[in-house]
Amino acid sequence: MTNETPVPLLSPILEHLRELHREISAITAGEVAAYIPELAKADPRWFGICVVTTNGGVYEVGDARQPFTIQSISKPFVYGLALEDHGRADVLKKVGVEPTGDAFNSISLDPVTGRPRNPMINAGAIASTGLIEGMTPQVRLRRIMEMFAHYAGRELSVDGEVYASESATGHRNRAIGHMLRNFGILREDPMPVVETYFQQCSILGDCRDLATMAATLANRGVNPLTGEQAIRGEYVESVLGVMGTCGMYDYAGEWLYEVGMPAKSGVAGGVIAVLPGQLGIGVFSPLLDGHGNSVRGIRVCSALSRRWDLHLFNRPGIGKSVLRLRLTAAEFNSSRVRPAAETAVLREHGQGLHIYQLQGNIVFATAEPIIREIAERTAGREALILDFRHVQTINESACRLLHDVLLQLHAAGIAVLFTEIGSASPLRRFMKAKLGTRFAEVFRIFDELDPALEWCEDRLLARLLPAQPDTSIAAQHFEILAGLNSNEIDIVMKMLERRTYAAGDAIITAGEPARELFLLARGTVTVFLPLEDGTRKRLATFTPGSAFGEMAILDRAPRSATIVAAAPVTCELLSLGKLAALGHTHPRIKIQLLENLSLALCRKLRKANREISLLV
Amino acid sequence: MTNETPVPLLSPILEHLRELHREISAITAGEVAAYIPELAKADPRWFGICVVTTNGGVYEVGDARQPFTIQSISKPFVYGLALEDHGRADVLKKVGVEPTGDAFNSISLDPVTGRPRNPMINAGAIASTGLIEGMTPQVRLRRIMEMFAHYAGRELSVDGEVYASESATGHRNRAIGHMLRNFGILREDPMPVVETYFQQCSILGDCRDLATMAATLANRGVNPLTGEQAIRGEYVESVLGVMGTCGMYDYAGEWLYEVGMPAKSGVAGGVIAVLPGQLGIGVFSPLLDGHGNSVRGIRVCSALSRRWDLHLFNRPGIGKSVLRLRLTAAEFNSSRVRPAAETAVLREHGQGLHIYQLQGNIVFATAEPIIREIAERTAGREALILDFRHVQTINESACRLLHDVLLQLHAAGIAVLFTEIGSASPLRRFMKAKLGTRFAEVFRIFDELDPALEWCEDRLLARLLPAQPDTSIAAQHFEILAGLNSNEIDIVMKMLERRTYAAGDAIITAGEPARELFLLARGTVTVFLPLEDGTRKRLATFTPGSAFGEMAILDRAPRSATIVAAAPVTCELLSLGKLAALGHTHPRIKIQLLENLSLALCRKLRKANREISLLV
Repeated sequence: MTNETPVPLLSPILEHLRELHREISAITAGEVAAYIPELAKADPRWFGICVVTTNGGVYEVGDARQPFTIQSISKPFVYGLALEDHGRADVLKKVGVEPTGDAFNSISLDPVTGRPRNPMINAGAIASTGLIEGMTPQVRLRRIMEMFAHYAGRELSVDGEVYASESATGHRNRAIGHMLRNFGILREDPMPVVETYFQQCSILGDCRDLATMAATLANRGVNPLTGEQAIRGEYVESVLGVMGTCGMYDYAGEWLYEVGMPAKSGVAGGVIAVLPGQLGIGVFSPLLDGHGNSVRGIRVCSALSRRWDLHLFNRPGIGKSVLRLRLTAAEFNSSRVRPAAETAVLREHGQGLHIYQLQGNIVFATAEPIIREIAERTAGREALILDFRHVQTINESACRLLHDVLLQLHAAGIAVLFTEIGSASPLRRFMKAKLGTRFAEVFRIFDELDPALEWCEDRLLARLLPAQPDTSIAAQHFEILAGLNSNEIDIVMKMLERRTYAAGDAIITAGEPARELFLLARGTVTVFLPLEDGTRKRLATFTPGSAFGEMAILDRAPRSATIVAAAPVTCELLSLGKLAALGHTHPRIKIQLLENLSLALCRKLRKANREISLLV
Repeated sequence: MTNETPVPLLSPILEHLRELHREISAITAGEVAAYIPELAKADPRWFGICVVTTNGGVYEVGDARQPFTIQSISKPFVYGLALEDHGRADVLKKVGVEPTGDAFNSISLDPVTGRPRNPMINAGAIASTGLIEGMTPQVRLRRIMEMFAHYAGRELSVDGEVYASESATGHRNRAIGHMLRNFGILREDPMPVVETYFQQCSILGDCRDLATMAATLANRGVNPLTGEQAIRGEYVESVLGVMGTCGMYDYAGEWLYEVGMPAKSGVAGGVIAVLPGQLGIGVFSPLLDGHGNSVRGIRVCSALSRRWDLHLFNRPGIGKSVLRLRLTAAEFNSSRVRPAAETAVLREHGQGLHIYQLQGNIVFATAEPIIREIAERTAGREALILDFRHVQTINESACRLLHDVLLQLHAAGIAVLFTEIGSASPLRRFMKAKLGTRFAEVFRIFDELDPALEWCEDRLLARLLPAQPDTSIAAQHFEILAGLNSNEIDIVMKMLERRTYAAGDAIITAGEPARELFLLARGTVTVFLPLEDGTRKRLATFTPGSAFGEMAILDRAPRSATIVAAAPVTCELLSLGKLAALGHTHPRIKIQLLENLSLALCRKLRKANREISLLV
């Protein structure tokens, strides 16, 4: 028993990382980069790992807060900013996307056009930096730093000494700059561009920053810890695309085969890896292999991919994971309390009212089985409710497919209703854009599932049952008076007090003492539960012929809910006092009333229990 | 209204494909392959598209049933068989996985080891074919053909004329064979291996076959149409890995950037693309570009990737999509019917009994937020029920994490229960392997959620309420007799008939007429619904003090369920006749009984309605 002492548990994820950190600490192969003195100062023992998930989980071990310069890891992010500034087509004219199989510092320009083969080699990265918009180098650097702040969730800074050292020794990169200018890939003086490139490489970050940046790419550009958008979602696939084929220099094929995540390494010892939709990894260890990749960084990513099954190409079938509930009105009904005859009609004929409740991310492949079922399961269907309460995201491709199939449903005379569409607002926008003002004619939108289902049920009942004139129901039709003879009914009628209410009037207010039983003669009433935040939740509605307010009468508690007239309402009230007196003066009548009440409760309970077993 | 005329709807997915087919039919660029006469016979107008989803959806347009030879598309599949025969490490010694940036027929052997750079160039493909186990070329070909039959879901055949023509002109491939023999990559006479390679390239398939083969790779090796396993799931990532970097010859970088799906093309005009977990695409159009890829095939894959958002790197955050329900026993209870005092204790103290119902595919990233919550939300927790009813798959990494965190919960004295674990049987196997016979001590397994929850509730109540001696309950403690004075209780007692039952006895049998109301004095009874398949579904249990069998009494219907003694049971029976008589002889007593009954029903209904609103 732990009521007394809450036990803090060890996260098994963190434990796995600690174990891995211990194991891989034993590897001391590789060399610290020495091409500039500042990098050579790195302690070869530094070793940090951090994993950040798109759900906002953060797991860090070792020297995860040790700052270092991100170096080439800056390349894909700056490339992403260039894509935002110019679009894919224009950027592709300046920088290709083919792997070279060459080392990181190879020049690799197309011999004819001078276009660098890809943005992960220095030439392509400098060309990308040259594409960043801004009137001055200062403005361009500030935009780059702002972008990194969004990715990392905090301001990062440039290491002045590393930058100075890069600048003092970066002759090869200056040569590349001039070659790019020669081919017209850079349109202006290449030297400020090369300086900005040296600065972006000299940005200081730690493993936690790297993992957060990677997780932001995994999360379609939204930082999962801050919620800030660091890059427009549509460009994420392009950034990850070049990381996938060119991110690990001439090790890209083996990397994608073994590790199966787009990745990028930097010469200071940082590595990031991205599992789209899921997580980002940041590793730091300055010991490099001959390809210029961190030895331990590669080992960590390989081991995590293997142990946690992270390989991008190793995915189980998506299945119907997006379908949370599939119901029909023959088995599940709104909370409207109806006469037994209406309930019986719904049970018998409700199988044409379909409810699909969706969950999670709706993309092409998760929408496909739903679309297929919508298109194929038409026999006898009258209405379709799509409930989006548990949906996280919906993409445009799924919107288009739903739009196309639902429009056909509408054309076939089938009512289509959307409920809780807030979480799927792209669908609403898409349909409004397609249909304009027709949208509201074609589709019905309800805030909640319950009233939408009630609307469908009412429509079905209106078709199948004789129309009820909007007059007060006769006493002998109150369910609670069933089985009484006309003499007994007269006795009860004399005890009743008639009250009328305008639409919107409160008939019962939560918290009041319970003094009467209400028989609903005309109109509709709605039961609301007042919530703590001042709003109210709709619990049920009642139709003429039914009784309400019996619960507080039976348990002698204050009213638990508020009941409001949804239309002009007439009620017959039986006061608690008269009901009690009835037990003495006409016990047979009271017994019959109580039996009827119990029977109505029994039926509701049976229905509720049946529904619960469908929902769990 | 469509009750009369079910309208067959057009699949919007098929419509999109038809539109695309029309658009891309206009493209007539490219040349039919002419290096052997049989391929040159192809009609350049042939054009088919097929998409098969891992959910078993099949969408085909155009010449999707036109047979053609699969050519190089055979390479990744045969490579997969080599992996199954030898394992990844041994195969990697013979064939690399680095893209070459070279054309399909380049020799590209490592100058020192002779190892082909990757299995998608001819040299690597021939080396892969040489790795297929079998005593004779006939056996090896038969194994290859059997594998393809699993992938395609039907027997495929070799086109004899194309094979003869390939064989007659395949001098370059023979040269490659001898080079591979020279370096010891092939261990025996290379000529039969090259012949088998010609045969695998000459296998006839159509677009539907290709799409099914691709969908099988997308579905971790299980053909989604037949359910047959074509390749062990663990090797699928490797097959897709080489397709991802080397599948489209020297166009691989741009392909992964633009289309974002592992793919493979063949010189007869076929293209496959795979979106892991989701779908496979097969396209056929014999017009080839300079890289040897089908012009229309590439256009179709690019367009589908863009229109349907299929890019592998464009994934929304996975979120808590795997958590279907999160409940506590303070808000949701088992179907056990309890005295009001017990129900009140559960509402007040049930927040330490946690229920997580999971859904879909449980992998590292979907398990992570659940694991995190399990590890962090320990305060006051007494029990955790994990329900797997809606789970599709669970991978080993998720099993390991769950195992580690749940073992800690157990060590902290928190009960851990698994329900409906059938769909998550890898978890059961994993835990049994880890814990051996301790497994059953540490974790409790229940078929269904309801009895597991009941077990937890009972455990909590046993701790918080005074122990109930296992003796018959005194009459004044029957809920239905509350409010009667001792004289009235005596009157009722005289009307009751005591019956005892052994554990397992049927107390009520479904279908019988209802003749009595049962007051449960001692023991527990279970309510079962008989199902059409001969089994029965557990609906509820009752504890001493409660009444059962009232429903059929009230609505005068036959018994709807069977009620069985779960332990030695004592009941007090009130016959229908005596209950009716009570209305005449002692109406006050009957009124009190009915009020008590209504009140009990009211409370159950309130609870049920509250629960429904939690579940939808």
